[in-house]
Amino acid sequence: MGRCTVISAPRVVVVGYGAAGVAAAKYAKATNRSCTVTVFEKRRYAVYHPCSIPDAIAGTLELSSLIEDPPVTPGLEVLTATVVEDVDTGGRVVQARDLRTGKKLNVEYDALVLATGSKPSIPRSIRIEDSSGVYTIKTLEDAESVVMAARKHASAAVVGGSALGVEIAHALAKRGVRVTLVERFHNLLPEGLDPEMAKKVEERLEAEGVALVLGDGVSEIHGEAGAKRVITGGGRVLEAGFVVLATGVRACNELARRMGLEIGVSGGVKVDSRMAASAHGVYAAGDVAEVRELLTGKPILNPFANTAYLTGRVAGINAAGGGAELEGVLRSWVVNLGGFKFGAAGLTEAEAREAGFHVLSTVVTVQEKPVFYPDSKPVTVKLIVDSVDGRLLGTQAVGEGDVLEKLNLAATAIASGFTIEKLLTLELAYTPSLNEVFHPLLLASDALVRLRERKSRKKGSPA
Amino acid sequence: MGRCTVISAPRVVVVGYGAAGVAAAKYAKATNRSCTVTVFEKRRYAVYHPCSIPDAIAGTLELSSLIEDPPVTPGLEVLTATVVEDVDTGGRVVQARDLRTGKKLNVEYDALVLATGSKPSIPRSIRIEDSSGVYTIKTLEDAESVVMAARKHASAAVVGGSALGVEIAHALAKRGVRVTLVERFHNLLPEGLDPEMAKKVEERLEAEGVALVLGDGVSEIHGEAGAKRVITGGGRVLEAGFVVLATGVRACNELARRMGLEIGVSGGVKVDSRMAASAHGVYAAGDVAEVRELLTGKPILNPFANTAYLTGRVAGINAAGGGAELEGVLRSWVVNLGGFKFGAAGLTEAEAREAGFHVLSTVVTVQEKPVFYPDSKPVTVKLIVDSVDGRLLGTQAVGEGDVLEKLNLAATAIASGFTIEKLLTLELAYTPSLNEVFHPLLLASDALVRLRERKSRKKGSPA
Repeated sequence: MGRCTVISAPRVVVVGYGAAGVAAAKYAKATNRSCTVTVFEKRRYAVYHPCSIPDAIAGTLELSSLIEDPPVTPGLEVLTATVVEDVDTGGRVVQARDLRTGKKLNVEYDALVLATGSKPSIPRSIRIEDSSGVYTIKTLEDAESVVMAARKHASAAVVGGSALGVEIAHALAKRGVRVTLVERFHNLLPEGLDPEMAKKVEERLEAEGVALVLGDGVSEIHGEAGAKRVITGGGRVLEAGFVVLATGVRACNELARRMGLEIGVSGGVKVDSRMAASAHGVYAAGDVAEVRELLTGKPILNPFANTAYLTGRVAGINAAGGGAELEGVLRSWVVNLGGFKFGAAGLTEAEAREAGFHVLSTVVTVQEKPVFYPDSKPVTVKLIVDSVDGRLLGTQAVGEGDVLEKLNLAATAIASGFTIEKLLTLELAYTPSLNEVFHPLLLASDALVRLRERKSRKKGSPA
Repeated sequence: MGRCTVISAPRVVVVGYGAAGVAAAKYAKATNRSCTVTVFEKRRYAVYHPCSIPDAIAGTLELSSLIEDPPVTPGLEVLTATVVEDVDTGGRVVQARDLRTGKKLNVEYDALVLATGSKPSIPRSIRIEDSSGVYTIKTLEDAESVVMAARKHASAAVVGGSALGVEIAHALAKRGVRVTLVERFHNLLPEGLDPEMAKKVEERLEAEGVALVLGDGVSEIHGEAGAKRVITGGGRVLEAGFVVLATGVRACNELARRMGLEIGVSGGVKVDSRMAASAHGVYAAGDVAEVRELLTGKPILNPFANTAYLTGRVAGINAAGGGAELEGVLRSWVVNLGGFKFGAAGLTEAEAREAGFHVLSTVVTVQEKPVFYPDSKPVTVKLIVDSVDGRLLGTQAVGEGDVLEKLNLAATAIASGFTIEKLLTLELAYTPSLNEVFHPLLLASDALVRLRERKSRKKGSPA
């Protein structure tokens, strides 16, 4: 369990109450019941579910249902509408301000968890001449604005084919808005899926009425709300009632910089495997913390709720005097567009090649269960392996079937260094009304084992 | 990939065309395209899906849909209605007989895969005075008989609360038959679930109209079809139109015995990790082969299709001159009763204790996804770990949620020796319309980590 500094009743301060802050506060209390946890959150509401915003925009959920009351835990106080303006890391004092009253307050801490999150980032290459009717998605207020715009205008342009961009485009189309999704790379999800897998998502979106512009970035946004003109580098002019920018995020590292914390190349706060930052007693977690990609060691931001929760938990435990570590992340993710799912764990083929691996890959499409079950659905999986040692490097899955099961099995296998040969010894649960007797990941592994044998025979044979 | 004996065009014979035989034949051909594969199957139809029989009895599927045409693969011949009467393992000749014509035929082989399967086993402790209206479940003919009986009679007794017994009881109840399920142990699924998890299955079955008699074994079966009387050791007399016995299976090892193959304590053919039996060139796979439980090394029969397929694949590859191995099995299994699912991977708590592990366990019940999603469903998971090193030994899951995902993730983690601490570093895919940000297995691991810490603190403190 690592080293364990015992402070009888440590005072833990958490800055930010997103997924990372929630987990940090919860696990600080769980680690040491006698510790006091004070959370500062600048929002007026304590807990909300940003990942459900697309479902609220689609109209599947009420926006108000995304707000949750904070837990009532003795010794855990959540101060909303309160912003931390500075931290004296020497004296271990937080300087905060109540946004409603303007009152300042100073709070001493033994350990501080910085969980200030991330915010939408708009590339400089996009010139916005008129920002009316142009939205980013982060808060419930943003979501509300987009819902209002969708009620008012018949068409929208979504800029950025990331997971969020795809979700928003799909959600708006579901509401009946005529949507064009623009991505400067030649395929959607360029950071998460290889082109042949992204193709399946593209086909699905087009079938659901989303127009795609791929391989062409947005350079200018003109016109007022209701009559926006989006101009691409390739010279396209897209007319739309409003525009949603899903062009990525960056770490909210302003406070960290003011505190003098070391910042990594990703823009996130540099931390060790215990999520400890460069100042004593200070931890960082969630989107503001730089994490390491597990297979390559590359420092990255991984602004997803699963990583936020895991890093928040580790930071909270350590802040309360416990011991927990996180070596790195695989960037496991999944998107669900009304039953059509896609996601990945580990490296894409492109990333694996860039990282210097000798890559073998295969794609298999199968019916989830025997075809005589009327609700059998197709699922496509891609495995990316190191051809030298056969180690699994990445998995992608797309389809109507149980994509989550494939991805989480794969994430577990990647994290434990499985080779395809080892995968082929996995005895997985089977019943024909749910799945097939030979798991798609094993089917793909088997194909790769034979591909690898053929390659090594070719190499071994005289020239 | 192990050793690799290359025979230019080996003649492979497969005896039995269930899941193991199908896999053996397929992977023999895949390993060496030039090999010839001859399959002997005593059934008149080649391929069928025995695991779907409960769905056919329930009326969800047509029985005829469970029959599949054999694959058309050059060099692969499936001889149905043909029984292998003996094998000369010295001269490597199979002696078979065509059941339709009575003609005998001798076939030479280089490698032989024995995949003769298993058959229903009725304990001697049950005295059957009149076998009319008493059925076991193995073949499609058995299933047909039960469907006919269910059309004719209003009530049934199912004997044996194994996975099959539970499936059949549920299927008959779904057809409108009044069912009593009798299990001599005090809980259902005594070999697969611990009592508190089995309890949830019991509650569900009772809610669906199945009457349960637990902790009381059947001793006698009297009366003719339509008026059966099932008498228990405890003196109960159950009246039923017909009776289904789901009292386990035993290996069809008669041919193996005639061949002089070594038979293990389980009644299965003794094999090594390559599925090689005690005679040269002979492999065994599927229900007739004895396998090792991965964590304990205990020799067992694991008569499930997933193991049959895996062992068949390994046997087929080796029979064709390739190299594949299987160290052992976890007995991963899952049952789906119309959306209510349950299953396990690895050891139950009872088995782990019996095997000498110092066991810690926990059970958590959670909603699969945030409660503001109207289709959020509950799922219960149990983790069983070794308290000494924190290693995961077994997982059970029950509920309406994605039980398969929990079990297959757990199977992967158990097979790779994960500790609960390692589980807690797993970054799994998350999207709120599918699941929760902190996976139930991680939630349970977290509880166990703290339980273990408390235990070790107690032990460490002065007495």
